[in-house]
This record gives sequence, structure tokens and C-alpha cells, in this order.
Amino acid sequence: MAISIRPLAVSLGDPAGIGPEVVGKCWDHRDRFALPPFVAIGDPRSLAAVWDGPIATIDDPIEADSAFDIGLPILPLGSVESSIPGHPDVAGAHCSLDALELAVGLARSGSATAVVTGPVSKQQLYGIGFAHPGQTEFVAERCGISPGNVAMMLAGPSLRTVPVTTHVPLGRVSEMLSPGLIENRGRAALRGLQRNFGIADPRLAVAGLNPHAGEGGSLGREEIDLIIPAIEALRAEGWRVTGPHPADTMFHTAARGQYDAALCMYHDQALIPLKALHFDEGVNMTLGLPIVRTAPDHGTAFDIAGQDRADPRAMAAAMRMAADCATHRSSAAA
Amino acid sequence: MAISIRPLAVSLGDPAGIGPEVVGKCWDHRDRFALPPFVAIGDPRSLAAVWDGPIATIDDPIEADSAFDIGLPILPLGSVESSIPGHPDVAGAHCSLDALELAVGLARSGSATAVVTGPVSKQQLYGIGFAHPGQTEFVAERCGISPGNVAMMLAGPSLRTVPVTTHVPLGRVSEMLSPGLIENRGRAALRGLQRNFGIADPRLAVAGLNPHAGEGGSLGREEIDLIIPAIEALRAEGWRVTGPHPADTMFHTAARGQYDAALCMYHDQALIPLKALHFDEGVNMTLGLPIVRTAPDHGTAFDIAGQDRADPRAMAAAMRMAADCATHRSSAAA
Repeated sequence: MAISIRPLAVSLGDPAGIGPEVVGKCWDHRDRFALPPFVAIGDPRSLAAVWDGPIATIDDPIEADSAFDIGLPILPLGSVESSIPGHPDVAGAHCSLDALELAVGLARSGSATAVVTGPVSKQQLYGIGFAHPGQTEFVAERCGISPGNVAMMLAGPSLRTVPVTTHVPLGRVSEMLSPGLIENRGRAALRGLQRNFGIADPRLAVAGLNPHAGEGGSLGREEIDLIIPAIEALRAEGWRVTGPHPADTMFHTAARGQYDAALCMYHDQALIPLKALHFDEGVNMTLGLPIVRTAPDHGTAFDIAGQDRADPRAMAAAMRMAADCATHRSSAAA
Repeated sequence: MAISIRPLAVSLGDPAGIGPEVVGKCWDHRDRFALPPFVAIGDPRSLAAVWDGPIATIDDPIEADSAFDIGLPILPLGSVESSIPGHPDVAGAHCSLDALELAVGLARSGSATAVVTGPVSKQQLYGIGFAHPGQTEFVAERCGISPGNVAMMLAGPSLRTVPVTTHVPLGRVSEMLSPGLIENRGRAALRGLQRNFGIADPRLAVAGLNPHAGEGGSLGREEIDLIIPAIEALRAEGWRVTGPHPADTMFHTAARGQYDAALCMYHDQALIPLKALHFDEGVNMTLGLPIVRTAPDHGTAFDIAGQDRADPRAMAAAMRMAADCATHRSSAAA
């Protein structure tokens, strides 16, 4: 008897968003996207409402592998009423949180190889008492890791970026930065490249904060006071770190070939190039966790939910990256 | 007898930089790049030092058209000693400033159709008493326009951006912004699209400053306090203006199709997407002048000067855009 392959655990996200649709489309195109077996976690009705493919309800993730050729395996969660696409409600918010919790638990216990999270609505989650800034921090807490020790990586086919600060007003970025924070995020990025991507001696390019990376102090002092000390500290540990680089000349084709990840000082510095180059296949990955967790780099898109317009490529890229990273981790551990 | 076509006036920039080399290569590939007749302005020795093609020294721009098939027409400027590629000196700085001055004068007088400026070294120019922040402000002053009333447009084949603020530390961007400044730059962008690109009813997309365009004020108030009032003022004048848009989702292929130019709040917000997408063919254009002025969006690159490694595509794109814009202007005036 063949040994069953453990699946990816894929939470469907908010049942009224595009999560169910893109997961269904990923199953449709599982061969073209070269996807490993996965198990969806969520309300089967939210999937059936937007997708016509066969659904295989299972009780245990280990059944996903054999069920995968017959239909889209799902571990069912549900509420009294099912959500209507495009119309998020309280029951759907609870369902999305339960799915996230179960998916993380399966990866923690080893029943799933990795977690891929569908898009949730933070506003809806806040409405039911969710107290974390986002799914990333929730996953970190469930894994027993301080949110300060995880880092977000945005990854596309030709670029990986790691923002040092994320959801803060631009005018407050400078005061949020410190050599220690930059150093910690840089180290998380470097270790994440080793652990998840199998890059033995990763190269990190650090962006400046100011135009032309401050031009020697005449356009801002953060490079001199905050960024260079962090770069030197990382180099002293033996890491291959360059910068601070002028952010505007870091992201063209030739420049991207010089590093494995770019450490960016603020949200849009990391997200503008990533989405300009790889809008339809951007993956959000959490570094610093004991498990592999990825997500498509898009939201619930309630405005197009249920209209068969959602593009599954980012979800497929998130699944494939999760599977690849899990493989790198297990082969490094073997 | 055929009527001579007036040429573009192309200043060679710093003679020790890559300006002479890229201008020479543009002449080599004038057919492939579909370039109109142009006249170089600078030291012929700086051209001969890095380029083996034929040079046609002329006395009057009107001779450029007939000379163009024989050699690269040049209006000679020179100093006692010629500069060595990669080794900028005082004489070269004077030469680059003289070339800029003459090129602007030729366009102002109508002897040239437009000005294309080669890259200069600001450091070298500051060393000889140049008191303007850059060539743009110098050109504006020579045209009798206040630097506050011109705007810089960065343009590539699929994207045009106009930064509201440019060379200021990132932490000072917020205090530099005002509804009036945003409105003025937006209007300069819109008028520039009409005048130079022949777009009768141009569409301007305005970026937010903060992540997610401030998310309704929770991630910063500049969108509400500064940007939206400017957008409303421009709309009240009848312009087609949208935003504020989250900057990270403005620059992918589908989004770029929705506008003719993006108004950006700071240097890297405008330059990161432009250079990520169009590094080798980015053009810097000054809007708000009585003449057409473009420049390749790269610097002197002293580190590779004289090594036959400089890529002429940005210079060629700057020449072609200058010629096209001059045509749009003259046909609108006809």
C-alpha cells in the first residue's frame, strides 16, 4: 500500500471573499500549476456557491492525498447560515478564524506540511473581537513566537522583499526605525532564505530610506545613523549584506540579480516594486515561524466575489512556494 | 532646394561622463532608434576620446540636417585641456555648463526644436559656483520661469510619473506637502500631457502618501487633509483626476492602463516603479517650460565612462520623446 503524502492546509479565508473561488480554480488547474495535494479548510457551501467542481469532504488530512484526484478535499467547518459572496457577515468572520486556527494546528502537529491562508477581512475580524493586527501575528502567537521576531516576506518570481516597518504612517517610519530593528529583520530575512529557500549563503541588499540613500547625509541622516550600523552588525556575523542602496535603482532586472532578498524600510518601498513586477503572483510569506506559512498577496476583493473574475495565480504561487519551502526544510532536517 | 529640418540641440553633459559615448552611439543607431537630426553641443575631443564614428563640426544648427548623414554634427565648445573619461575636472564642469546654456539658447531662439541634456555632475558644478539644485532649475531660470512652476516628469514606454516633492529627506515629505503644491504639480502634469503628448483630456491618478492610502485616516491623515482637497480642486476645474490610490497597487499593467500620468508624493514613489519597469529607457522631462526639454534618466556614471559599456537607449528615448513632443506642440500651434 502506498504511503499517503501529507497535504498543504489551505484556509479558505472569509467565505464571502474570493478565497473559495481561487482555491477551487487552483484545484481545476492543479496540473498546470504543478500543485501538490492540499486540503481546504472552511465552509463547503462557500466553495459550492462560487465553484462547480467536485468537492470531497474528508475527516482527516491524511485522506486528502487519495481524495485529491476525485475532488477538492475539504475539512468542513460551518455555521448555521452560509455567507453570500460579496456580503461579509459575522458568521463568516467566525468561520474564517476557525479555519485559520485549524490550519495552523494541523501544520503544528505535522498533519499538514504547511499552511496557506486565504484572505480574511480584518474589519470583520475586529468586529468579532479579534485583537491581532492581522493573520501573521495570530499565526505567530499560536506558534509561541513573539510578533517582533517574525518578518513578512513578499515574493514573486524575480524579487523577494522584506519590509522593516509595515502599517505605519509614512511620516512615522523614521522614528520607528532603529539599528536593532533593522538588524533583527535582516537576520530573519537571511535565516528565512537559508531555511525556506535552501540558499546556503544568502545575499541581502538593504535599501536606504531617503532619496539617493541620503546622498552622504545631505538628504537625510537615517542611512548613517540607523541603517549602516545595522548592516555592519550583520556583516560582523558573517552575512553577505550590501547597502544602503538608493531604492530607485535596486529593482531593475540587472540589480535584482545581485541579491536574494531586498530589505526595505517601509511598506510601499517593498510593495511598489513587487506589485509593479508581479501583481498577479505575489506571495506573502511569514519568516521566523516553526511552520511554513504563505498567503496570496491580495485581499478578499468582496467587490468581485462570486463573479468568476478572481485570478487564482497568486493563490497557486502561494501553494507552490509553501510546498517548496516545506521540502527545503525537511531535506535540511533529514 | 530642400528646406533644412531644424535639429534637436543635445548637450553632451560632463565630458568625463558617459554623455559623449551615448550620444555617439545614438548617431550610430539613428535609423534603428528612428532619431531625427540632432546637433551635439560640447567638446569634440570628449566625443573622439570614446567614440570612433565621424564627427561633422558645424557653425550653425541649420547645417545639422545636411551634415547628419555624413557624421555626427557638433557645435564645438572647448577648453584648453580636454577631460579624461572617468576623471571629472573643473574645465569639464565649465564645458558642461556652457553646453547647457547654448543648447537652451538655441531652443529659445527657435534654431533647435528642443533641448536634450546629457548628464552633468552636480558636485562638479557646485565646485564652479553653480547655484541651482540641478539642470532643471537652471533651464527654468533661463526660460524666465520660476522653478516652483515647473514639474519633473519621468517617462517610460508604459508609465509616466510626476513627483510632487523630489530631493528632500523622506521624513520631511509630509511637511513639504500642501494642497496648493499638490494641485500645482497636478495641473502642470495635466497641461504637460495636453501640450507635449497631444492628449486632449488627460487622466491623472494621484497616489496616497501612506500605506493603503491611509486607510481612511487610520494610517495617516495626509490623504484626508492635503491630497483629497487638491484632487477636488483639480476636478472642479474639469480635469479627470482619480485617487488618492494606494501606491502599491497603482503600477501593475492593468492599473497603468487607467491613467496617462501618476502624480506621486515623493521621489522614490515616482522613481521606484519607473526604474523597476523601464530602467534602460527612462526619460526625464521638464513640464511647464516654453521649450521642450528632456534628458535620459541616468547620471554621468563616471565609473564606466570610456569603457564602451554605456547603454544609449535612455538617451535615444529622450531624443525621440523630445522630437515627438516638439511635433505635438507645433501642430497644436499651427
